[in-house]
Amino acid sequence: MAGKAALRVGIAGASGLTGGELMSILLGHPLCDVVYAGALGQVGRFVSECHPSLERRTRLVCQGQSPDAIRASGLDCLFMALPHCESMKLVPHLEPGLRIVDLSGDYRLRDAQQFAQHYGQIHADAGGWNGFVYGLSEIARGKIREARRIANPGCFATAAILSLYPLVSKNLIGDSVFLSGVTGSSGAGTKLSPTTHHPHRAEAFAAYKVFKHQHEPEILQALNDANPNWAGDLVFQTHTAPMVRGIYMTAHLRLNPSSSEADVADAFAAHYADAPLVRMRREPPDSKWVRGTPFADLSWSVRGRNVLVFVALDNLMKGAASQAVQNLNIMLGWDETLGLTHCFGGGV
Amino acid sequence: MAGKAALRVGIAGASGLTGGELMSILLGHPLCDVVYAGALGQVGRFVSECHPSLERRTRLVCQGQSPDAIRASGLDCLFMALPHCESMKLVPHLEPGLRIVDLSGDYRLRDAQQFAQHYGQIHADAGGWNGFVYGLSEIARGKIREARRIANPGCFATAAILSLYPLVSKNLIGDSVFLSGVTGSSGAGTKLSPTTHHPHRAEAFAAYKVFKHQHEPEILQALNDANPNWAGDLVFQTHTAPMVRGIYMTAHLRLNPSSSEADVADAFAAHYADAPLVRMRREPPDSKWVRGTPFADLSWSVRGRNVLVFVALDNLMKGAASQAVQNLNIMLGWDETLGLTHCFGGGV
Amino acid sequence: MAGKAALRVGIAGASGLTGGELMSILLGHPLCDVVYAGALGQVGRFVSECHPSLERRTRLVCQGQSPDAIRASGLDCLFMALPHCESMKLVPHLEPGLRIVDLSGDYRLRDAQQFAQHYGQIHADAGGWNGFVYGLSEIARGKIREARRIANPGCFATAAILSLYPLVSKNLIGDSVFLSGVTGSSGAGTKLSPTTHHPHRAEAFAAYKVFKHQHEPEILQALNDANPNWAGDLVFQTHTAPMVRGIYMTAHLRLNPSSSEADVADAFAAHYADAPLVRMRREPPDSKWVRGTPFADLSWSVRGRNVLVFVALDNLMKGAASQAVQNLNIMLGWDETLGLTHCFGGGV
Amino acid sequence: MAGKAALRVGIAGASGLTGGELMSILLGHPLCDVVYAGALGQVGRFVSECHPSLERRTRLVCQGQSPDAIRASGLDCLFMALPHCESMKLVPHLEPGLRIVDLSGDYRLRDAQQFAQHYGQIHADAGGWNGFVYGLSEIARGKIREARRIANPGCFATAAILSLYPLVSKNLIGDSVFLSGVTGSSGAGTKLSPTTHHPHRAEAFAAYKVFKHQHEPEILQALNDANPNWAGDLVFQTHTAPMVRGIYMTAHLRLNPSSSEADVADAFAAHYADAPLVRMRREPPDSKWVRGTPFADLSWSVRGRNVLVFVALDNLMKGAASQAVQNLNIMLGWDETLGLTHCFGGGV
Repeated sequence: MAGKAALRVGIAGASGLTGGELMSILLGHPLCDVVYAGALGQVGRFVSECHPSLERRTRLVCQGQSPDAIRASGLDCLFMALPHCESMKLVPHLEPGLRIVDLSGDYRLRDAQQFAQHYGQIHADAGGWNGFVYGLSEIARGKIREARRIANPGCFATAAILSLYPLVSKNLIGDSVFLSGVTGSSGAGTKLSPTTHHPHRAEAFAAYKVFKHQHEPEILQALNDANPNWAGDLVFQTHTAPMVRGIYMTAHLRLNPSSSEADVADAFAAHYADAPLVRMRREPPDSKWVRGTPFADLSWSVRGRNVLVFVALDNLMKGAASQAVQNLNIMLGWDETLGLTHCFGGGV
Repeated sequence: MAGKAALRVGIAGASGLTGGELMSILLGHPLCDVVYAGALGQVGRFVSECHPSLERRTRLVCQGQSPDAIRASGLDCLFMALPHCESMKLVPHLEPGLRIVDLSGDYRLRDAQQFAQHYGQIHADAGGWNGFVYGLSEIARGKIREARRIANPGCFATAAILSLYPLVSKNLIGDSVFLSGVTGSSGAGTKLSPTTHHPHRAEAFAAYKVFKHQHEPEILQALNDANPNWAGDLVFQTHTAPMVRGIYMTAHLRLNPSSSEADVADAFAAHYADAPLVRMRREPPDSKWVRGTPFADLSWSVRGRNVLVFVALDNLMKGAASQAVQNLNIMLGWDETLGLTHCFGGGV
Repeated sequence: MAGKAALRVGIAGASGLTGGELMSILLGHPLCDVVYAGALGQVGRFVSECHPSLERRTRLVCQGQSPDAIRASGLDCLFMALPHCESMKLVPHLEPGLRIVDLSGDYRLRDAQQFAQHYGQIHADAGGWNGFVYGLSEIARGKIREARRIANPGCFATAAILSLYPLVSKNLIGDSVFLSGVTGSSGAGTKLSPTTHHPHRAEAFAAYKVFKHQHEPEILQALNDANPNWAGDLVFQTHTAPMVRGIYMTAHLRLNPSSSEADVADAFAAHYADAPLVRMRREPPDSKWVRGTPFADLSWSVRGRNVLVFVALDNLMKGAASQAVQNLNIMLGWDETLGLTHCFGGGV
Repeated sequence: MAGKAALRVGIAGASGLTGGELMSILLGHPLCDVVYAGALGQVGRFVSECHPSLERRTRLVCQGQSPDAIRASGLDCLFMALPHCESMKLVPHLEPGLRIVDLSGDYRLRDAQQFAQHYGQIHADAGGWNGFVYGLSEIARGKIREARRIANPGCFATAAILSLYPLVSKNLIGDSVFLSGVTGSSGAGTKLSPTTHHPHRAEAFAAYKVFKHQHEPEILQALNDANPNWAGDLVFQTHTAPMVRGIYMTAHLRLNPSSSEADVADAFAAHYADAPLVRMRREPPDSKWVRGTPFADLSWSVRGRNVLVFVALDNLMKGAASQAVQNLNIMLGWDETLGLTHCFGGGV
């Protein structure tokens, strides 16, 4: 596309599922040129050999992921779609001025002890946190606009925070919150495992990581930012479902005695009034409505003091790649939805 | 099978999914002869035309479902796998001495107003409730043994009650309980609908019936029987997942201040010590472990005051057909598992 | 998108699966404005109520499908995604100059008897055939460029003709050809049926329409155009697989004694050298590589006189909606791929 | 089951998918006691830890697979469900009198060169072939009755031979035969691979092993036994579908000039008249009809000289475990269907 005022972007971890999704979005983005694809173990192969669906859309060749290789690409922005605990080893060696959107968990938690507990390693770049903004687009637009480095939220955390943030920030709910989350198999990436082996996974639904999912502190950190007085005794339980794409979050919480259904309505309406990629629904959303799209769909209901909030999103899109590009758009001062809303089919 | 001391059994609603499952189990049951298959709209066709998988296993022909047709079959026990609100019109016209296992919702709720609210009709045989025992095998064995008529529990209700009954009856938990249930598509039976249309349902996860599932009062009724002092403010939310078979229940509840994790362990261990078809698990069960089996698998975990209980079962088996046969076995004084534990493959 | 030199396009049958797919593509097409959506039985509802995934992408309201309603929309081009035997009743009443891309079977077969046999009705607009070009983009680019009316090919027929056309036109193969085709469930559209009921269709693979699929004469007609001397004794057998999207075609044929493997290689290479949306593969394609994309992927192999050709495409895209837009692009003299290659994710 | 005249049976490879399926069947078999489970790498674990669905059905512990361990179990019959090229190393060291049903490919092909070509190894027990009968139950009942060692056929080969044997043995068809076979993901066993990774496999249909599947010589060997004069130029092409269980075979062949449709009807009717586990169908079978069952379902159609034959079976059952037990039953002079026909649910 000759003549476009292109931002030079690159992807580290281009051979993974999220990397492929990012590649597809960025190749269609009207203001980006993808000039770098890093993929350990694939160096020298075409990106389209890793992702056969991208054949004819790019002739990029996978490169290494050393700081030198990245520097040589002359990037304006680097997307990092690496396994957890890899970005933090690489970031300190990258140019200070390079824009970064990191999709791993490395720069999300500001508490080193929490990080160590949930990711199993001492953080290799603890000081680096300061440079990163937690990029949940709909709660941090202002900060993202000023940022050069973004910690892109986890897929479950995105759904959970979208569910609770408006209510917690308005102090409408009590401390006991239960979040039941469901993920498709693509959340596990390209890594093979018995739970993603098709003969098992087809028709398999199960809870996992009881009382210990690494997104729980991420959610609590965001809610504490929303309202430091809210002392959430929050339980977040994850499940796997036999589908490929999708996060579904069902939140059960209790209204404060002084809060009403109208307050809930107001809180959600106000918070998402200007959010082009959050769609308020009158009935619970279906993961199929958001499959392959950059949207998060949300509904809520109240009975007595009980509140239910439902959020559906695509873990590879709003839960990862499309939110990363949404954040890029915000950072660069572009329309938040640029290059995003055309990226999908008619719904099946 | 010449010479076996056979009970003459029949199935009304034999052409449905649950009817087919019952047929398959009963054809293999060592002490039953299936001599009647009722199926509206299929009269005169072979049962194996409705269920091609049963070809070579039975030569039964579908009959009408009039009281006369049923009487003429000389049954010892009738299984009724009809849509809701059909059994209650038929039961009053059947012989008083006929054993019945009714798999619909018609004789589960003892409160006429609750029934009308949740099933949308005035009950046609309200007095008939007295003759029926609510047949959740693991909580009502004694009563089932004495019964001639069984109201077989709902699939979700079975999972929910198995999760909570031991804790409520021991008074271990507070009033606020949240149940998040997930069902496969076979829960909808043979009736076609947009939500079970394959192009939609594949990859579709969604909540439905917010604050109004008809199993909620069924669950509350059983828990109230367990402990009339427990004033549960229970919320039960259902979801559909893109699988065919399976119920998954995740229960979140809060320990009473005077209760401990050890109390929870004791309550479950004691309650299911002699239950051959409930399997206690150390980690959350997977719906695949119970697929096609008569088992319910259960695990629980405690953190602080928060308790999580997980139950997986097959909605067509422990949630319907196999529990119906389990109840027959108990009624007749046979081994509870007779004809049940051989009914499945190796797990995929 | 202010200021774009937009073609005014509309869709009859906008509430169906293909209609939704077309809508999604055309909403993202840089040179089209979608100004009309016809949907019987949905008049007055938002298109996004029929297709919840399109919420926020269009505020169009469904209209009726009378000639007047269509005329009033001032269309440059009408896409017709109606059930078979509907277009032929409508087309005679539309303005002669209106461009039309018809996605049904109504204007594909030029033989009235064949039409009646395969579609079960006497053709209502037999003379109308003359105005339509059979729009398999890769074999009829020249004619499409001159056309105003396009009969968009069937999904199976597209895959079959792409497999055989280069070989038949070069006279490389004998008369006996066997085509084994496989379709996903979205091929059946939004119409509910027992074979697309999720509890059945999941895990179900079956052949159907033995020796009588309506695409067989469509394939033969195209091959006869390719080479009137080829007297194909062609058998085309269709199967349904438990997936939503995808056509897979496996063709078995026999080389003529005078033909060689090199001839096969040359025929394919020459025929698809300038086809941007047909990707030659060295190994058999996977339906996942083309899912949600406008591409058809093709490979072939030879052993002795036996030739196998494999084609994968997405039935809703290259088998319907994206080929319709590809044909529009060709008709209008635009880049064949305009608005098409960005329409999909990273491959899962 | 006190007092039953039990055959002592064991399974080598008990932790695999086929091993689990065998275990489930044999645990329910009225004349067998399972006393040995061999599983490399699982020694000392309960079988039910490998197969959680078998919890409560067996307390067997996995043992090693040395000849000594097997000898010490005092077996009457050993089922070997090991990866290819393992049985042939073990069999020479087992007691000569021990009955064996080997489910691998090791003792199927009688041609050492063919074996080496297709399995990639020189056969370690080439002389051993003589002791084995190729156990396709429906074509070799007589020989199986006399045998002590059975080479259990491949899943695809079973479907292919059932399709063609009656026609080839009666000399009804020409030499050119095309077989298009489709398998579910469980055919790949417990071994993880990118093609059985759920994010990929869901919605994925693809051809694989073009012109080189190892079942092709197995099929040809059986057809040559049927009719040494038939010089089949047979092409067998395999495909993977996004389902767990199932083999579907579509055979295209051409009638000899002297043969008629009536001859085809007679050949099939005669050959399967006394086959309790082959069900002739009037329309093409559906893989769902045989899922979890020991049946193979078959239909055929003729148009002119073209014949199509369709066979559906469950790869883990008639394609492996249930055929192995069917062969045991025949060997022992028992009813061929003993312990088999009760093993499944109602069809979804």
